[in-house]
Amino acid sequence: MKFKMLFIYLFFVMAFVAKGQDVPLPTATQLAWQDAELVALFSYDLHVFDGNKYVQPTNRIQPISDVNIFNPMELDTDQWIKAIKKAGFKMAILTVTHETGFALYQSDVNPYCLKAVKWRSGKGDIVRDFVKSCQKYGIKAGIFVGIRWNSFLGVHDFKVQGDSEFAKNRQQFYNKMCEGMVKELCTRYGDWSIIWFDGGAHGPAQGGPDVLSIVEKHQPNCLFYHNLQRADMRWGGSESGTVPYPCWGTFNDSTWFSKRGDAIDFRPIKYGYPDGKYYIPAMSDAPLRGYKGRHEWFWEPNDEAYIFPVNNLLAMYDKSVGHNTSLILGLTPDDKGRLPKADSDTLLAFGNQLKVLYGNAISEKNNTTENLTLDITKGKIVKKIVVQEAIEQGERVRSFLIKGKKNGQWETVFEGSCIGHRFIFDCPLDKQNYDQVALEIVQAVGKAKIKRFAVF
Amino acid sequence: MKFKMLFIYLFFVMAFVAKGQDVPLPTATQLAWQDAELVALFSYDLHVFDGNKYVQPTNRIQPISDVNIFNPMELDTDQWIKAIKKAGFKMAILTVTHETGFALYQSDVNPYCLKAVKWRSGKGDIVRDFVKSCQKYGIKAGIFVGIRWNSFLGVHDFKVQGDSEFAKNRQQFYNKMCEGMVKELCTRYGDWSIIWFDGGAHGPAQGGPDVLSIVEKHQPNCLFYHNLQRADMRWGGSESGTVPYPCWGTFNDSTWFSKRGDAIDFRPIKYGYPDGKYYIPAMSDAPLRGYKGRHEWFWEPNDEAYIFPVNNLLAMYDKSVGHNTSLILGLTPDDKGRLPKADSDTLLAFGNQLKVLYGNAISEKNNTTENLTLDITKGKIVKKIVVQEAIEQGERVRSFLIKGKKNGQWETVFEGSCIGHRFIFDCPLDKQNYDQVALEIVQAVGKAKIKRFAVF
Repeated sequence: MKFKMLFIYLFFVMAFVAKGQDVPLPTATQLAWQDAELVALFSYDLHVFDGNKYVQPTNRIQPISDVNIFNPMELDTDQWIKAIKKAGFKMAILTVTHETGFALYQSDVNPYCLKAVKWRSGKGDIVRDFVKSCQKYGIKAGIFVGIRWNSFLGVHDFKVQGDSEFAKNRQQFYNKMCEGMVKELCTRYGDWSIIWFDGGAHGPAQGGPDVLSIVEKHQPNCLFYHNLQRADMRWGGSESGTVPYPCWGTFNDSTWFSKRGDAIDFRPIKYGYPDGKYYIPAMSDAPLRGYKGRHEWFWEPNDEAYIFPVNNLLAMYDKSVGHNTSLILGLTPDDKGRLPKADSDTLLAFGNQLKVLYGNAISEKNNTTENLTLDITKGKIVKKIVVQEAIEQGERVRSFLIKGKKNGQWETVFEGSCIGHRFIFDCPLDKQNYDQVALEIVQAVGKAKIKRFAVF
Repeated sequence: MKFKMLFIYLFFVMAFVAKGQDVPLPTATQLAWQDAELVALFSYDLHVFDGNKYVQPTNRIQPISDVNIFNPMELDTDQWIKAIKKAGFKMAILTVTHETGFALYQSDVNPYCLKAVKWRSGKGDIVRDFVKSCQKYGIKAGIFVGIRWNSFLGVHDFKVQGDSEFAKNRQQFYNKMCEGMVKELCTRYGDWSIIWFDGGAHGPAQGGPDVLSIVEKHQPNCLFYHNLQRADMRWGGSESGTVPYPCWGTFNDSTWFSKRGDAIDFRPIKYGYPDGKYYIPAMSDAPLRGYKGRHEWFWEPNDEAYIFPVNNLLAMYDKSVGHNTSLILGLTPDDKGRLPKADSDTLLAFGNQLKVLYGNAISEKNNTTENLTLDITKGKIVKKIVVQEAIEQGERVRSFLIKGKKNGQWETVFEGSCIGHRFIFDCPLDKQNYDQVALEIVQAVGKAKIKRFAVF
């Protein structure tokens, strides 16, 4: 009997080690998400066509008076996707529904969709166009589904408006309609990389639709973001396109969504927990038209002045992608159905600058577990230092130093904690002329797995 | 100066007399309505396809879960209209929307319409089919528009469900949507004989849509039924297909709708007022499937046993058409899109019996103002005595006698009050063998104008 007990004990120990569960591991889907790094969110809804400034609280409680204002005569999703492809983006997400409830495809369960409009004789399907363009240009495709608000059907913060039995019945109808839309979207267009439920999706326990089981059944390899049942990533706590440092990919609760308001300024979701039991990486999101105090996810006329300048985007990149998150940039197709030239020009310039900055390393070492030293060719200026963990093995590093050697003397340039998928260190002007640069792992869970250590 | 005053006085007297305004006169539209006499109301909505019994209070607060149950594979409006034409009907009305809010045409303002379904690839237009069939068979066409209830959008008794600003906005949206539908219906299909707003349409003063101005602009010759601004006819106070006697075509208030609940059992609208200032004739409505305690305006399986037998319909005819109202019979196209054979067979038999009963008068006199005597050929049985006023001159008779002469002796058979468009007297068995029958006008406003006095 004692042998048997020992056997069972050993079996569990070996299973735990074999699964590498000293740190939580990302799924293949989460890895792909982290690898994407630059993600475009195309926001498109009826009010793009109304000629008015978009005021979100009003939009949520004010149905669009005429659905036929939707008339993008020059719609060209190829042009959208080509623009982000050239800029180095790897993934695109389309708002299939946002807060009006209007769906950009041929829904059989939601009449408030492209069937309802005269545009393309009621046969338009922008989701289809979008998917085809993504396939054409090798961009991963995802969808954003807004079911929390529906100004047409009278849904406010997931709840159908009204009294007593009627409201209860309509809530059931609405939930079923949402489930129906998710099923349509999960079964008609091939594999999605991500399905993003705006503001979360209330699960059945909260009186909401059961969208998770549908996604899990039909899109097993899709990132699910998010409800109280499951969340494959977490919001980064702001719409600034950045997260603070450190931003751990791990979190202490599998359903971070319920915790987001627990602390001042969303600190828990911004920083994460280095020893969190769940791998739920943060994201950084911001609208491209967010400069000078504006913050526009949707197109409006005469907003070109609010497009972030390239230098701001580069700084944003370092504090999002370089802080272990993907950067989701909100793009605004216009009322003609095109991404405006000013926006695509800015994206292109941003992408070109990224290539200039990060296209060719001065020096690098890949796939090693050791502490590393890089030699810098004499005269080369080190502007950026990039470290990446092999996060398929989890985030293992807890503490590290970046050091520089000049005139035979080593000095510590940066005392870091989290590396994760990618850490970018922006070298101050007085630290750019080292002869050597070193990475020293001070503390790690198990053995650190460094995917890349490079200087640019 | 005295001459001038006299002149003005005479002018007004002459104008009053010239306009015949000693009694209120029907419009040409109302005359056509009264002449139609037999009107079919085709009720068709999503729940015809749900396989369940129709329970109206539930239907009003329970959205249909799947709009695509609507799938009338053998829809044939020609078959509907041919059936009523053969039965002697002169007008047909289609429920364009009822209480689900689903519209049987291609609306650009109400997405919950035939655009939303797979049937006919979302291009079906039953209103168009209906109009074409009516034109083909020479039947006047009208529409029934339900805007009081909308289970899809959450409208209950005209009111959008919900709280505060959101409900207010949605009410405005809903009102505008209703106005948009009415405009579409008034401008796309030619002239309507009647537009019937289910349960009345709240006017702008009650927070409802302004449908009246749209109908008046685009359909000046259409019967408007009804709201608090205007009502060209009135409900007869029951859904029994009958009205009591007398049922005056005149009423004491131009907006009877507000008065309907003023007295027990709707007595005011059932009887009207002989000296009412407004010509607003009553109607008698009943579903054909209303026998043995059932009362079904919509098709359900296995309801054939509840079709009224022909004899009941004939009795109904005498107490509706023969009581100065049009009879509106509710017909139920089935889930295949056809009027069931049992219903059309009954209609045909009803029409044939009407021809047998009223096809050939034994004796008649037309278009006279005098008291009248009809000689009855020896041996002829008088079953029905019909009197009609020339109501284009208004309802003038206030009291009349029908007398019969047998063996040289006159006796009073019936002491009547209202004649109006048509009065039918059903002769008791012991009063069917007169040698002569007479009509005696006892009291009238001005001179009585008798269009027809006939025995059958």
